[in-house]
Amino acid sequence: MSKKIIFNAFEMNCVGHQSPGLWAHPRDRSWQYKDLEYWTDLAKTLEKGFFTAIFIADVVGYYDVYNGNVRAAVKNGVQIPVNDPLQIAAPVAQATKHIGIGITSSTSFEHPYTFARRIATADHYTKGRVGWNIVTSYLESGAKNVGDNGLNRHDNRYEVAEEYLEVVYKLLEGSWEEDAVVRDREKHIFADPDKVHDIGHKGKYFEVPGIGLTEPSPQRTPVLFQAGSSEAGKKFAAKHAELVFVSTPSKKVVKEYVADIRKQSALNGRDPKKTLVLALVAIIVDETDEKAKAKYEEYKKYISREGALSLVSGWSGINFGAYKPDEPVKKEDTNAIISVVEHLTNGEKEWTPNELADWVGIGGLGPLFIGSAKTVADQLQEWVEYTDVDGFNIAYTVSHETFADVVKYLVPELQKRGIYPTSYADGTLREKIFGYRYLPENHPAAGYRDIEKVKREEADKR
Amino acid sequence: MSKKIIFNAFEMNCVGHQSPGLWAHPRDRSWQYKDLEYWTDLAKTLEKGFFTAIFIADVVGYYDVYNGNVRAAVKNGVQIPVNDPLQIAAPVAQATKHIGIGITSSTSFEHPYTFARRIATADHYTKGRVGWNIVTSYLESGAKNVGDNGLNRHDNRYEVAEEYLEVVYKLLEGSWEEDAVVRDREKHIFADPDKVHDIGHKGKYFEVPGIGLTEPSPQRTPVLFQAGSSEAGKKFAAKHAELVFVSTPSKKVVKEYVADIRKQSALNGRDPKKTLVLALVAIIVDETDEKAKAKYEEYKKYISREGALSLVSGWSGINFGAYKPDEPVKKEDTNAIISVVEHLTNGEKEWTPNELADWVGIGGLGPLFIGSAKTVADQLQEWVEYTDVDGFNIAYTVSHETFADVVKYLVPELQKRGIYPTSYADGTLREKIFGYRYLPENHPAAGYRDIEKVKREEADKR
Repeated sequence: MSKKIIFNAFEMNCVGHQSPGLWAHPRDRSWQYKDLEYWTDLAKTLEKGFFTAIFIADVVGYYDVYNGNVRAAVKNGVQIPVNDPLQIAAPVAQATKHIGIGITSSTSFEHPYTFARRIATADHYTKGRVGWNIVTSYLESGAKNVGDNGLNRHDNRYEVAEEYLEVVYKLLEGSWEEDAVVRDREKHIFADPDKVHDIGHKGKYFEVPGIGLTEPSPQRTPVLFQAGSSEAGKKFAAKHAELVFVSTPSKKVVKEYVADIRKQSALNGRDPKKTLVLALVAIIVDETDEKAKAKYEEYKKYISREGALSLVSGWSGINFGAYKPDEPVKKEDTNAIISVVEHLTNGEKEWTPNELADWVGIGGLGPLFIGSAKTVADQLQEWVEYTDVDGFNIAYTVSHETFADVVKYLVPELQKRGIYPTSYADGTLREKIFGYRYLPENHPAAGYRDIEKVKREEADKR
Repeated sequence: MSKKIIFNAFEMNCVGHQSPGLWAHPRDRSWQYKDLEYWTDLAKTLEKGFFTAIFIADVVGYYDVYNGNVRAAVKNGVQIPVNDPLQIAAPVAQATKHIGIGITSSTSFEHPYTFARRIATADHYTKGRVGWNIVTSYLESGAKNVGDNGLNRHDNRYEVAEEYLEVVYKLLEGSWEEDAVVRDREKHIFADPDKVHDIGHKGKYFEVPGIGLTEPSPQRTPVLFQAGSSEAGKKFAAKHAELVFVSTPSKKVVKEYVADIRKQSALNGRDPKKTLVLALVAIIVDETDEKAKAKYEEYKKYISREGALSLVSGWSGINFGAYKPDEPVKKEDTNAIISVVEHLTNGEKEWTPNELADWVGIGGLGPLFIGSAKTVADQLQEWVEYTDVDGFNIAYTVSHETFADVVKYLVPELQKRGIYPTSYADGTLREKIFGYRYLPENHPAAGYRDIEKVKREEADKR
């Protein structure tokens, strides 16, 4: 194994994220999500362990499928309350030197014109350390509260997202030429008007005739993250994403997913090695296997089954509150989540809501690795070798303890094996990960750099 | 004179803000607006001078009325490029202890549901030091690029803004009761579902049936800033705003404005002394009158007339590029800006575009005070006594030099006279300014705190 494993910290601007109920653990800090210190302390810890990025998930909405209301989610602090993730980027950059910050933003709730300004601003303030996790949003509660004015469109969300990205690329890559800002104090020219272009976008969903609001930021388009698991989602990821996330406990599923993404990425004319795949994982690591197992047993006591089921119900659209806690879940309620869980027992077992909750309750849908640094390193290495995955998106159980343990115990072991970074590369997030600063020529964004040519071609088509 | 003068720094996330062309001055730092250090350095300087807040103006759009295009604005860096102001709040709070941060956000470009989350997040991260400057937006270029999806509505913008605020109040004051978040680790209750309410909003422009996304922030609704000068704008300000801005060189106009705002505020059942009015002002202060005048002469050389006229054209909707630089402006082109300028010469003079530019070029539409600390303090004091204004919104000429000079020379003089603060009060921005933490009972926001009652009353009306 020659490549170095990438670690991202999987976080969210809320309490408990993927480990419902664990906020009640005496050492958990996740309820402090509303204080900047929570984020800057975390970032400093992660940077000691050479994490590539903090990846901040988000929902604009809440989990109200379980029992048909939001009560269980509110009571257990399950991803509600939830704050704006964007505002974490600048303070984290201020407190650290290298770590990237991946911000989730949906193509369903903000116009691409104002969004492009927001993400470019974040790229400026982080000096090029920002990523954008593109989501199309799945929670009905978000759509309901933001309504049509919020750009929500259900049936065609990937079609909207496709055009949304086109507008963002035109604004961030095409509108202001690289050397448009001259800042010539002698000649009193701040920017050269000949190098700032109207994008002239006239699409099915958006009309944006004018110029972008921001000058070129360090990365122009930030590093693009995505987590599409449907066929449409995978197609979208293979076309646009630079880092893709996959969430399943199955090595086999991950292996197929990685192969499929690389294949589709190549079919799009991209370098398949430049679409990295990270797998979700939960890790409980300590000095010895015994200590790690004891920690797991202690953590487990804090799982909120009700909270876990409100998450699973939201993800799947199935109200698990309609089952008794020990009643086996019907086969016809098969869906992404259930099939993922069934894999663990080769479909031989009927899962009950309580069993589901206990399994999802620590770190969500990925595998859970428990043990000494050696044990966990073996498992990660085996996953990488078997699946060809590029790294892991680590969900916490107790925040920040999970990450502090990974940095203290696991990272040195992986470094000793030569399969984990021992320093950060210089430059922007994209430079640190890929060695280049801008999206490459074979990425669709590059096609919008000569915006005058694009406008001529689009005019010819009309 | 017994009251203490309030100083706000008038800024914008762009180059040059109200002093077009001055970015080219060798000591100007405003082109560094895209670096966090620009903002944190500024905030620290202001905090040494007990400024109440940095007030960050914003436009989503650009100045393209002058000559019918954006070229002059781009060439001279006139409020374009322009970054997202919101992302300044958290880093400034991180770098300082007391100063408030007023963020401009328009009711025309983001849905109130997502906006409420953003501003509440900023209030959390600043520990209650954030203000919201409510604007309805005036630039056609913004409307054009964001379009209908961006909620833009021209003719009825104050009607939309009124309902927008209602939704925000319901979400921030009504949805989560003060003690909804219990965080009871023993009982495993994060929040009490009985104390988290659907807001059930069903209005003319927005439908928001569900709960808010954020837990109560230190101020709940942030301090409300506004700058309405039209009759509709003043009405809106007198109803909602806690700090109002006025921009005119005329003491008489300010006096009438203050009296009118206080009167209308009282008619709304509010305490007229709790709707503070700040007047825009530019200040050039130095050790002596002579040195200050010399500084002014030096600054003046950097004014971009073209830049100033693109600003004035955007504000007024009149293309001053259609005039020759020395051709008197026609009387029928009278409007807010021209009438303001005419005041300076009692309407006896016909202004040419060049004269307009030279006047607007240093600090915009407010008066310009030049001199030693004593000279400027006399002028400010006279303004306060004559107009009953509560303080000043200080525009910079050269950033950060203007503010550093005010802190170094002017503030000690005002403190010596006993008319300027010598310390910060504890607590949130609202506590520092008004001595209380939440909007008072006679403010319209308070009417949405008992949201179940509001819903019953609204249902009865239907």
